[in-house]
Amino acid sequence: MTETIKGGLEGIIAGKTSISTVGKEGLDLTYRGYSIHDLAKKATFEEVVFLLLYNKLPTKSQLNTFIDQLASLRELPSSLQSVLKLIPKETNPMDVLRTGCSMLGTLEPEEGGRTQEDIAKRLLAVLPSMLLYWYQYHKGKGSIETTSESEKTIASHLLHLLYGHPANADQIRALDVALILHAEHEFNASTFTCRVITSTLSDFYSAITGGICALRGPLHGGADEAAMEQIGKFQSVEEAEQGVKAMLSKKEKIMGFGHRVYKYGDPRSDIIKEWAKNLSVKPQYKVLFSIAEKIEEVMFKEKHLYPNVDFYSALTYHFLGIPTLLFTPLFVISRTAGWCAHIFEQRANNRLIRPIAEYVGPLPMPFIPIEERTL
Amino acid sequence: MTETIKGGLEGIIAGKTSISTVGKEGLDLTYRGYSIHDLAKKATFEEVVFLLLYNKLPTKSQLNTFIDQLASLRELPSSLQSVLKLIPKETNPMDVLRTGCSMLGTLEPEEGGRTQEDIAKRLLAVLPSMLLYWYQYHKGKGSIETTSESEKTIASHLLHLLYGHPANADQIRALDVALILHAEHEFNASTFTCRVITSTLSDFYSAITGGICALRGPLHGGADEAAMEQIGKFQSVEEAEQGVKAMLSKKEKIMGFGHRVYKYGDPRSDIIKEWAKNLSVKPQYKVLFSIAEKIEEVMFKEKHLYPNVDFYSALTYHFLGIPTLLFTPLFVISRTAGWCAHIFEQRANNRLIRPIAEYVGPLPMPFIPIEERTL
Ligand SMILES: CC(C)(COP(=O)(O)OP(=O)(O)OC[C@H]1O[C@@H](n2cnc3c(N)ncnc32)[C@H](O)[C@@H]1OP(=O)(O)O)[C@@H](O)C(=O)NCCC(=O)NCCS
Ligand SMILES: CC(C)(COP(=O)(O)OP(=O)(O)OC[C@H]1O[C@@H](n2cnc3c(N)ncnc32)[C@H](O)[C@@H]1OP(=O)(O)O)[C@@H](O)C(=O)NCCC(=O)NCCS
Repeated sequence: MTETIKGGLEGIIAGKTSISTVGKEGLDLTYRGYSIHDLAKKATFEEVVFLLLYNKLPTKSQLNTFIDQLASLRELPSSLQSVLKLIPKETNPMDVLRTGCSMLGTLEPEEGGRTQEDIAKRLLAVLPSMLLYWYQYHKGKGSIETTSESEKTIASHLLHLLYGHPANADQIRALDVALILHAEHEFNASTFTCRVITSTLSDFYSAITGGICALRGPLHGGADEAAMEQIGKFQSVEEAEQGVKAMLSKKEKIMGFGHRVYKYGDPRSDIIKEWAKNLSVKPQYKVLFSIAEKIEEVMFKEKHLYPNVDFYSALTYHFLGIPTLLFTPLFVISRTAGWCAHIFEQRANNRLIRPIAEYVGPLPMPFIPIEERTL
Repeated sequence: MTETIKGGLEGIIAGKTSISTVGKEGLDLTYRGYSIHDLAKKATFEEVVFLLLYNKLPTKSQLNTFIDQLASLRELPSSLQSVLKLIPKETNPMDVLRTGCSMLGTLEPEEGGRTQEDIAKRLLAVLPSMLLYWYQYHKGKGSIETTSESEKTIASHLLHLLYGHPANADQIRALDVALILHAEHEFNASTFTCRVITSTLSDFYSAITGGICALRGPLHGGADEAAMEQIGKFQSVEEAEQGVKAMLSKKEKIMGFGHRVYKYGDPRSDIIKEWAKNLSVKPQYKVLFSIAEKIEEVMFKEKHLYPNVDFYSALTYHFLGIPTLLFTPLFVISRTAGWCAHIFEQRANNRLIRPIAEYVGPLPMPFIPIEERTL
């Protein structure tokens, strides 16, 4: 038996992967061997999804076919629409995706002859529709659009539905880059959840539903929303500096900082920070950006902690006019690509993932008949 | 970094627990220090649930209050009824519970001021209602009963709804014992899933939904259904002997045998085998029981593998007249007790569960522009 010294399975190898690496020293990130810097600069989200799923960058014609396929799979089954309407307005949208994904599994089950690739594509295409359908329904929009024919890519489609009109090229590219950066990250908690579920030979929807369940938490995907709420509370750079110091002295966590693996900075942060900066055109956005930079500075000085991908992603989404409560659902849409790749990989060489516990409870005791028990 | 030699986190300690132990040598089982033999002989399922949740055997009056509370929490919200009706008849009932649990989380969210104990009790009470509501609806029953006032316990209530009339004392006790045996089992794959999800500080419903996702797989909870299907295929003891040998020679797995931790037998198997034997009153049941015993004999001779809890549980359920496709959902209802206890424990002393992977993919490569890619 091997003991995990620090808890939380830190540093414990739970399996092999060829999908991504955070680098030998936890410094870098590659997807299928390609650097995240190259991908964020030169590729589109759909290219990256193709790469993750099929282990190869697509040719021009493969990519076009793939984009068309995804665009054709956006329609929501009517029973799913009914379920989405039954989910209350105040619901955390992560619970909408969790329920919607699970419901889809009853309507289009894997057991019904669908391949895992079919389901992966369907989910990537339909999760945005689920989210926006529910969101628009509760905003009281008369006609609820979930498929905007003219918008071929996931990023442009999402923004069009959200804005009610087409987004501009910069906006689309900013979201595309954010989706690329969030698509995959080795054995993070949600991906690991997908793999544990898959290791019992459960179905595809169960694995993805489980991924959504784990991503929801503020120590993982939920951090982007928590970070935005925190940044938004400060009115000025000075207030931010004092506020963060006060929080640290109370041992409170500053969301969007720190990482289990990246101890010397998250390579994704600088990439998305650049986009946040580009988009901070309005005066109040410039203030928010300076506040964020001040928080970054204080966190480094005080704790030697770096922002992770979520910190400046939160600002980027905010500057794109995306409501805070949709940040983590966007993370779902992106990370579904990585989850699917990991489900494929786990299935191809499966063994039940079942660790053990260190028992720290009472020694065996004789049973006490109910009449003899005391309060 | 510590490497797991055999994969699947075998033998790796993923955390501490005081809820149950499979014994230092993987030979025994205690819940909160009480032997599973005592609990299966002397306690009721509700007593065991109380013990798991509150770390203490209840007094008579505590137990009565607890049973009354659970009985009062069976009602299904009308939106949830609507969702259940939208789930097709052919659906795997595990997907019904997965979706129902997730939907309940949107209607009665943890964020709405509910305590974790409230949600635990609500789930234990309402999961049987969800299952039976959906099941009865698709059997075309005119009036769908989900609360049978006269039946106070989960076992008697479940059987009454299923039979359409009260079950007898032996039937109720047999189901009660099966529920006791399935209630908790340390860091099995579904409980571990609940803990990983909880470790991100996600909500209670997400953790339980994830547990259902993992339990569904045939290498885990789904094994009882798979075992029943396999036993049911043989017409005679001779056929079973030859059939199992043939399967083994083809390296096929016999469901309901083997265990990651129990290498010398599962203490729960003999307990439930006794109940299967007691209930095998009809001639065709006696044949099935002999077939099962023959399979047990062959598996020991050929592979030195023992039946796990699922093998004779499957027969017990079958002899109780429970349809095979409801076996794993019964497991959910029981294991929810253990899951809840583990969520409480994880929350009380949390650290993000995030292992690492061994990277076996390509070395970093230069990006290839789309025009230069080949098929
Ligand atoms: C991501 C995270 C869970 C990694 O955690 P971990 O490896 O378990 O690290 P720990 O929580 O054990 O933190 C180690 C130390 O750094 C501190 N720390 C880590 N992240 C911190 C943060 N965001 N703010 C303040 N302190 C932090 C811890 O308090 C702890 O201090 P201590 O040793 O004095 O107790 C953690 O950094 C965190 O909670 N960050 C905020 C949430 C977040 O942004 N998540 C998104 C990740 S992509
Ligand atoms: C429970 C289980 C997943 C534990 O698995 P594990 O610790 O990963 O063990 P492995 O699958 O690595 O099995 C070890 C060896 O025993 C064999 N084995 C294990 N269970 C077997 C079974 N039920 N039937 C036939 N052979 C089995 C394996 O094929 C393997 O043989 P090998 O070394 O020749 O390859 C496994 O025993 C199993 O699949 N059982 C059937 C499903 C089941 O009943 N699950 C419910 C568990 S409560």
